[in-house]
Amino acid sequence: MAFSFGRHLKISIFGQSHSEAIGVTCEGLPAGTPIDEEELYDFLRRRAPGQSLTSPRLESDRPRFITGVSGGKTNGAPLTAIIQNTNTRSWDYTELRIKPRPGHSDYPAAVKFQGNNDIAGGGQFSARLTAPLCVIGGIVLSVLRREGIEIAAHLKSVGTVHDRAFDPVKPDMKDFFALRHADFPVLDKAAGEQMRALIDKARMQLDSVGGTVECMATGLPVGIGNGGYGGLDGAIAAVVFGIPAVKGIEFGAGFGASQTFGSENNDPFYYDDTGVVRTKTNHCGGILGGMSDGMPVVFTVAFKPTPSIAREQETVNLQTKENTRLCIQGRHDPCVAVRAVPIVEAAAAVAIYDVWMEQ
Amino acid sequence: MAFSFGRHLKISIFGQSHSEAIGVTCEGLPAGTPIDEEELYDFLRRRAPGQSLTSPRLESDRPRFITGVSGGKTNGAPLTAIIQNTNTRSWDYTELRIKPRPGHSDYPAAVKFQGNNDIAGGGQFSARLTAPLCVIGGIVLSVLRREGIEIAAHLKSVGTVHDRAFDPVKPDMKDFFALRHADFPVLDKAAGEQMRALIDKARMQLDSVGGTVECMATGLPVGIGNGGYGGLDGAIAAVVFGIPAVKGIEFGAGFGASQTFGSENNDPFYYDDTGVVRTKTNHCGGILGGMSDGMPVVFTVAFKPTPSIAREQETVNLQTKENTRLCIQGRHDPCVAVRAVPIVEAAAAVAIYDVWMEQ
Amino acid sequence: MAFSFGRHLKISIFGQSHSEAIGVTCEGLPAGTPIDEEELYDFLRRRAPGQSLTSPRLESDRPRFITGVSGGKTNGAPLTAIIQNTNTRSWDYTELRIKPRPGHSDYPAAVKFQGNNDIAGGGQFSARLTAPLCVIGGIVLSVLRREGIEIAAHLKSVGTVHDRAFDPVKPDMKDFFALRHADFPVLDKAAGEQMRALIDKARMQLDSVGGTVECMATGLPVGIGNGGYGGLDGAIAAVVFGIPAVKGIEFGAGFGASQTFGSENNDPFYYDDTGVVRTKTNHCGGILGGMSDGMPVVFTVAFKPTPSIAREQETVNLQTKENTRLCIQGRHDPCVAVRAVPIVEAAAAVAIYDVWMEQ
Amino acid sequence: MAFSFGRHLKISIFGQSHSEAIGVTCEGLPAGTPIDEEELYDFLRRRAPGQSLTSPRLESDRPRFITGVSGGKTNGAPLTAIIQNTNTRSWDYTELRIKPRPGHSDYPAAVKFQGNNDIAGGGQFSARLTAPLCVIGGIVLSVLRREGIEIAAHLKSVGTVHDRAFDPVKPDMKDFFALRHADFPVLDKAAGEQMRALIDKARMQLDSVGGTVECMATGLPVGIGNGGYGGLDGAIAAVVFGIPAVKGIEFGAGFGASQTFGSENNDPFYYDDTGVVRTKTNHCGGILGGMSDGMPVVFTVAFKPTPSIAREQETVNLQTKENTRLCIQGRHDPCVAVRAVPIVEAAAAVAIYDVWMEQ
Repeated sequence: MAFSFGRHLKISIFGQSHSEAIGVTCEGLPAGTPIDEEELYDFLRRRAPGQSLTSPRLESDRPRFITGVSGGKTNGAPLTAIIQNTNTRSWDYTELRIKPRPGHSDYPAAVKFQGNNDIAGGGQFSARLTAPLCVIGGIVLSVLRREGIEIAAHLKSVGTVHDRAFDPVKPDMKDFFALRHADFPVLDKAAGEQMRALIDKARMQLDSVGGTVECMATGLPVGIGNGGYGGLDGAIAAVVFGIPAVKGIEFGAGFGASQTFGSENNDPFYYDDTGVVRTKTNHCGGILGGMSDGMPVVFTVAFKPTPSIAREQETVNLQTKENTRLCIQGRHDPCVAVRAVPIVEAAAAVAIYDVWMEQ
Repeated sequence: MAFSFGRHLKISIFGQSHSEAIGVTCEGLPAGTPIDEEELYDFLRRRAPGQSLTSPRLESDRPRFITGVSGGKTNGAPLTAIIQNTNTRSWDYTELRIKPRPGHSDYPAAVKFQGNNDIAGGGQFSARLTAPLCVIGGIVLSVLRREGIEIAAHLKSVGTVHDRAFDPVKPDMKDFFALRHADFPVLDKAAGEQMRALIDKARMQLDSVGGTVECMATGLPVGIGNGGYGGLDGAIAAVVFGIPAVKGIEFGAGFGASQTFGSENNDPFYYDDTGVVRTKTNHCGGILGGMSDGMPVVFTVAFKPTPSIAREQETVNLQTKENTRLCIQGRHDPCVAVRAVPIVEAAAAVAIYDVWMEQ
Repeated sequence: MAFSFGRHLKISIFGQSHSEAIGVTCEGLPAGTPIDEEELYDFLRRRAPGQSLTSPRLESDRPRFITGVSGGKTNGAPLTAIIQNTNTRSWDYTELRIKPRPGHSDYPAAVKFQGNNDIAGGGQFSARLTAPLCVIGGIVLSVLRREGIEIAAHLKSVGTVHDRAFDPVKPDMKDFFALRHADFPVLDKAAGEQMRALIDKARMQLDSVGGTVECMATGLPVGIGNGGYGGLDGAIAAVVFGIPAVKGIEFGAGFGASQTFGSENNDPFYYDDTGVVRTKTNHCGGILGGMSDGMPVVFTVAFKPTPSIAREQETVNLQTKENTRLCIQGRHDPCVAVRAVPIVEAAAAVAIYDVWMEQ
Repeated sequence: MAFSFGRHLKISIFGQSHSEAIGVTCEGLPAGTPIDEEELYDFLRRRAPGQSLTSPRLESDRPRFITGVSGGKTNGAPLTAIIQNTNTRSWDYTELRIKPRPGHSDYPAAVKFQGNNDIAGGGQFSARLTAPLCVIGGIVLSVLRREGIEIAAHLKSVGTVHDRAFDPVKPDMKDFFALRHADFPVLDKAAGEQMRALIDKARMQLDSVGGTVECMATGLPVGIGNGGYGGLDGAIAAVVFGIPAVKGIEFGAGFGASQTFGSENNDPFYYDDTGVVRTKTNHCGGILGGMSDGMPVVFTVAFKPTPSIAREQETVNLQTKENTRLCIQGRHDPCVAVRAVPIVEAAAAVAIYDVWMEQ
């Protein structure tokens, strides 16, 4: 059940990188939910930074709602959106069936599916499958916004170059707005320039580089989520690990918290001027006992470097059962973390909404 | 649905810290599965390090299988184990309902459950609820062992003191065996001494300290798990975030991978002497595209410092709506990560078994 | 996953007929839901007609809430109730492992569980396992009553003797009240006498007899349930088939509707005096397109005769692989449909509540 | 979650009667499962009896597999099939939004979805949505056939005219074969003629008529399914109630069993000549304690008469809040039970396969 998930917002994603089309079916959005296709398209465009808005490639990437929408609103039937795969070149992927790419799903998929899987473009393991997640995520982001919940993410680091972090106690909403329209999704432009330089360097060296994405959700009421195995953190993690190349997630101070004392890490409560309970620090990332505590929810996701690099690599030949070498052809995104920024927002949105609907 | 989880191995945990009893119901274990109560008890004892084996407290902690077991084997009916809560002192927890403890679930729980929740000992948010997880986890660890799958964990760090890590490429099974019988769950005794000293220091200072736990599973066949939202990593993460005080998880190189280049991070494939495909390094933590790749599965979990510390802390009085101060009474475990070691093993076991059953 | 069900009201039943105890865990009841134990006990008593209220057997049947209840209200933790199995005689069930009882689960269970299943008293297939369903059902019946939803059932027929049916258009609430306190759960006392006579006759002849139970729910708002596979009818059917001995279910006119013309079967809409849309007839049983239509929801359940009869029967000896004969010992209920009346109410309550919570 | 169902075979159906397309996504079919499109098409054609094979309407009804199939086999990615809705006439359904059709979902859907639902052709409540079920059902029927499990259904009755029943003890496989190629899905041609006459009569009288469908599955191993709420009967019922117009289901003797004595209804076991345990009768419909007992699984489904009839009917005007009358236009199938025959087979196939996969 790899591509069906969610308890209240039930999402079922389908497609392979080079199948006729990819898409998603979603049940659970209340009938009458407005679908603003332009707002959604603006969001989806953020998965393809640097491309001009009228790019024909992008135009064809526009989702078509074949069911579930009437007159710009959900109609209570399952909502299904389809994105055609117009751009599937007749690339020869045969070699990859024999010589699995290091760092890719090729080898375990070959064993698991006994050669039946579609290897072209990575089949169902392709990052292309995050587009349908973003279709639903984009819709849900709008739904949550109408409820006063804002979600934003930025590139926290590329290699060892770091952006400044969100302020976890008093986030600046201008940051949120700016990120939505940024060329490059960082808070500190200078850091962004350094990151771009590092990515370019990696590209020049036929290499790739890893990165992290920080995501924040503000406006969640207190008490969303639950203890035990129903926590908001676990729900977000479960969706986030569905994004290709994710290798870790931490909430608030996260791994850093493991190096501190309780007297440093505990977030003291206080009443603010408006009589609202808040915490002075936010090391817990807005989640206590699996529940939102009223402070911004903050988490960071680690992305490994793109495994597809043009450099020659060592691998095996599954046919001859010999060690061999492989050169992966084609142009590849040297840093998946950049495009992952809106994908993490989408993942956060659907996970939070699913838990939020439980109330 | 906070305490029910699992698709093929369906687990339903129940109890509060001070309720009459706590326990667990589990469906999905094949009828005829042997339940070795002594082996299980040896495992459960690891949740209480330093205690002598005949401690009456521990004896009463022994689970009683009230259904699902006949003649030492599962009988196909739901398996339910009960642990009595004999030791629930008449502590006065009333203050905590008014003055939420920083870093604890008290405040969001008070809002969510509108005062109906059981505050005593943390109610259902207590780490005590990990005992039922360990009952099932312990059984599953034995089941997996019979299938050639071994799972072990150790304390990777306390504060900034680190144990040596598992060898992710060629793990030493002697380490696994030693950990099962260790007083203190580390690989490097000297590091263990330093950790104990740090924990003692925290205790003396009425403080607590965080830590990390590294867990490894060996012997998994290639292709366990799936792409998309059905990955082995996501499944493990979802259960691990059910353990109290967890703030992060990373697989293989994890956050470290985000700082590297693809040429460094990719794990080259090769045929070993026995004709088995292996990787020279294991930065991916044994998981590619959500599937096991035949190498050891490795992940690390970050635990925050115990939020219950004896030092005076700032908090609010939810009744008078004023800022106030709180001194938490009672003795508290100054480093939850130590006892968490077998809990992480249990979480890994049930998550892996659940995904494994899908094959 | 035989004993875990429900999407929003998650129920997990455990136990065998002769295990130490049986019980149930339930998640999804809102924190603060009052648990009126006397009201619940009154309901549970209806599973044992003819027994005096102070019967020691019954007293021991009283559920004990070991978690999830504080001060007479649900506290947000999973609710677990335990019923001790004090009365498990040392009956010798060994023969049944070899000679399966006709009409019982013995034979397929022996094959499925390869001899590991608990045969005593029917193991987990025993009707005893309906007691935990009734514990949750009884609580939910009270919850629904507070929402204006009343559920009642009666014995519609025993063999070929029929009670009068509920009025599906204008139900008499006095009927509902009377059934709750009746010695024998029928609407027409004379029919009840005939049924009792027939049951006695069956008992005398060392035989048993089948029957049907009609159940009605009033007060449901319009639009509960959904089309497709999310219908109120399908949800009720799924739970009802969990009751032992059920062989059929029909809604409204049911099988009778299959013999009519559309012009007879369609229920014409009209506005009543208070401006509410109603139907003149209720052949659809209050459900259209899987959704409640505002009229009483009505369904009938068919129970087969108790398979345990004292007469000698033909069966096989699974050990010698020969045909043989069997005499089942012990006293057996000659008509399970009688005791099934409150069980059907409980099943309806949990199914309806689960669907209702989706709104 | 109206259109997503199944635990191991996860099915998600989408579409409205007049949306651009309808379709289905399915996860859980093993990679490498052959998809014989001609065999599937033969099956789908049975949903449209009396139509010639080259009908353009039918050709356009052919499902297109946009993902999940490579080279005629499933490839392990989610399988999605799309059927275009080419034939959606510009009918004016506006009146139905105001004047709900008796016996239809119009009224509760209007209340539930507050006017946002697609009324055209019944929206997501249309019987058209059974086409995607049949796509998956047809594939699964082939899968089961390769496992030695055959499923067939026939029209058991129309109004009060009955076909002969399947022999529940020794079914004739020639009947199964004949039904697959029959013009009219009955076992007894004479009865079929009478049924056709009755249907014609109903059509002439601008009316419709109900019917029942009997379905049988042979070749199931002993022990498929489970006790409690995991029974094979409950699983079949849950899917069957997803078919529009279903009002009842019974297994084996069903409601008839409720009128018998145990000594009549119990099915005696015996060893047949080949040493296989069988029962002399099959009143239980091949299911004991929720598990298959090795005999043919038999059940009967009741369909109400098509609610859309051309006769003038009483209804309400939801706008003016007055009683009014309605004439439904267009041609309507006067007996849905006829076309339902393969749909019931499809429902049985997916339900049985889902439970079967649990083993």
